[in-house]
Amino acid sequence: MQITCPVPVSETTLITMGHGSGGLLTHKLLQAGVFNLLENEWLNQQHDGATLQLNGRVAFSTDSYVVSPIFFPGGNIGDLAVNGTVNDLAMCGAAARYLSLSFIIEEGLPMEAFYTVLNSIARAADAAGVRIVTGDTKVVEKGKGDQLFINTSGIGTIHPRAAIHHHHIKAGDRIIISGPIATHGIAIMSVRKGLEFETTIESDSAPLKYQVLSMLEEYGDAIHFLRDPTRGGVASVLNEVAGLTSLGFTIQQQALPIDEQVEGACEMLGLDPLYVANEGIFLSVVDPEYAEDIVALLHKDGSTQAAVIGEVSTEHPGKVLLRSRIGGHRVVSYLTGEQLPRIC
Amino acid sequence: MQITCPVPVSETTLITMGHGSGGLLTHKLLQAGVFNLLENEWLNQQHDGATLQLNGRVAFSTDSYVVSPIFFPGGNIGDLAVNGTVNDLAMCGAAARYLSLSFIIEEGLPMEAFYTVLNSIARAADAAGVRIVTGDTKVVEKGKGDQLFINTSGIGTIHPRAAIHHHHIKAGDRIIISGPIATHGIAIMSVRKGLEFETTIESDSAPLKYQVLSMLEEYGDAIHFLRDPTRGGVASVLNEVAGLTSLGFTIQQQALPIDEQVEGACEMLGLDPLYVANEGIFLSVVDPEYAEDIVALLHKDGSTQAAVIGEVSTEHPGKVLLRSRIGGHRVVSYLTGEQLPRIC
Repeated sequence: MQITCPVPVSETTLITMGHGSGGLLTHKLLQAGVFNLLENEWLNQQHDGATLQLNGRVAFSTDSYVVSPIFFPGGNIGDLAVNGTVNDLAMCGAAARYLSLSFIIEEGLPMEAFYTVLNSIARAADAAGVRIVTGDTKVVEKGKGDQLFINTSGIGTIHPRAAIHHHHIKAGDRIIISGPIATHGIAIMSVRKGLEFETTIESDSAPLKYQVLSMLEEYGDAIHFLRDPTRGGVASVLNEVAGLTSLGFTIQQQALPIDEQVEGACEMLGLDPLYVANEGIFLSVVDPEYAEDIVALLHKDGSTQAAVIGEVSTEHPGKVLLRSRIGGHRVVSYLTGEQLPRIC
Repeated sequence: MQITCPVPVSETTLITMGHGSGGLLTHKLLQAGVFNLLENEWLNQQHDGATLQLNGRVAFSTDSYVVSPIFFPGGNIGDLAVNGTVNDLAMCGAAARYLSLSFIIEEGLPMEAFYTVLNSIARAADAAGVRIVTGDTKVVEKGKGDQLFINTSGIGTIHPRAAIHHHHIKAGDRIIISGPIATHGIAIMSVRKGLEFETTIESDSAPLKYQVLSMLEEYGDAIHFLRDPTRGGVASVLNEVAGLTSLGFTIQQQALPIDEQVEGACEMLGLDPLYVANEGIFLSVVDPEYAEDIVALLHKDGSTQAAVIGEVSTEHPGKVLLRSRIGGHRVVSYLTGEQLPRIC
């Protein structure tokens, strides 16, 4: 795969409504950019869909990405859109294999921005070991969108040892987090608010596929549940999971890994990091017998701040409790309203 | 499946940014609306993705729908989004089975409009025999979207007798259209321009799955290629297909079915119906030996205006020629610029 595709010289410098017409400009945009950059045996057919051979259990997931701004420290909407869906599949215990890619472009988007995003998509797909096999490009009038929205949907093959289901969560299970919280949300927020730190806080957006597959390969059905705490943060996601079971979740504040600068930024912005969005980490609910071994495996695989952060019990069913650093308890509820809109 | 789901009384009357936060409002919106209305064994898991068992050849397709206005005669963005992707899969020779559903909602969308669209989605999915198994809901600020954009991606099982590929198109093949052209585009345009006709021109948006499966069941690999002429119309789609082969396509103007009112509206608006978008019809390129039988089958299946409209030859390779009613020839090129933006 060609990794860098310059803006074709013959093109206009801005995306126009005609690029979404289905006519000649659409054809040129796809030929010069998308097909060239992402080429593979499926996309090359330029048909309405891709034909795949699949056997067995697969996972299917979708997400639309509306992050604002579309470029931020550590990434852009393109790699976020690839990693996000790769990760949703990983949370089903699946290795992402095929992605669809659909653009909604606001008229006037600089062609160069579009190509930069496309290049990031190609690199992220390569890094995550997925192929973009089918797609769509729409253009809306200026003022009817916001530069660029991307939808990716994905198909992944479920690991033969995976048995991920909220029904498998049991009292006594340990809750593991794979890395420090709130990094992605604060990276986006610091651009929006024009905050400056000693070193730039970069988004941790990354594919979680390899860590998850490695865990499943080794520990199989000892991994009861997986979920990446994106929108709404760790607090909202644990509330969702607790709501699906008739069990209670308790987490230890002091066990939660968080980058010092990110924590400082949260304080400055008046944000509770438990509600801030993440992109490059995941929560797992696992058999207590293997919890420490699983954390050790995550450390070995490069997630050096992975930690057991809490456990599941029959007490306070459906609720999430936080044991604070000074020993008190408080109920951690769903995010109400909007703490950080459009972070993914 | 419950077919009508009233707006939950406890909800606010407008969609707010909080409905896209991933927190409590998102949870309530999904519980009261989406999960309730579209419920099935996959969606009920409320996980990041759906787990499916698939064996054999499948087709995978995606489309984002940005039609404006979102309500139009004969349908709305909801059934369009279901039928559109079901049809893209049909064009691969596949029976749509599973869809993903992703919303990008502009803040301020009336809750009632959202529920009306959801109800249409549920009905259209039922009619097309597909299950919505995974989804996503994002909200963007007022002025950063346009009421509602929807992405659907789909997985379908390819008919065992299907062999749809542009490589299979041969000189001598006949081109069949399944119904009258330009209806959908003119239905949308007439709302936008406030045009009134004797009877309302309604979109022909419909699932093409059953007609296509019936054709494949009966004629198998005599069906060489399928494509629905949506954006860019019949002219652009035939140009795309001609470009993929080293063959020429000739169509007969007098053979092209078109509704009289639609033709009148095209004249009034100065639009060439060959470039106007369609939603409920498809083109097929078939073995000449079976062309008339296939047309007869389409008539029997309710596509009473299906007709052979042209043929493929080794002349004028890569080009599309129109033989006019008075016997002249002209090259029909790609749509340049934007004849009818945002019709799907």
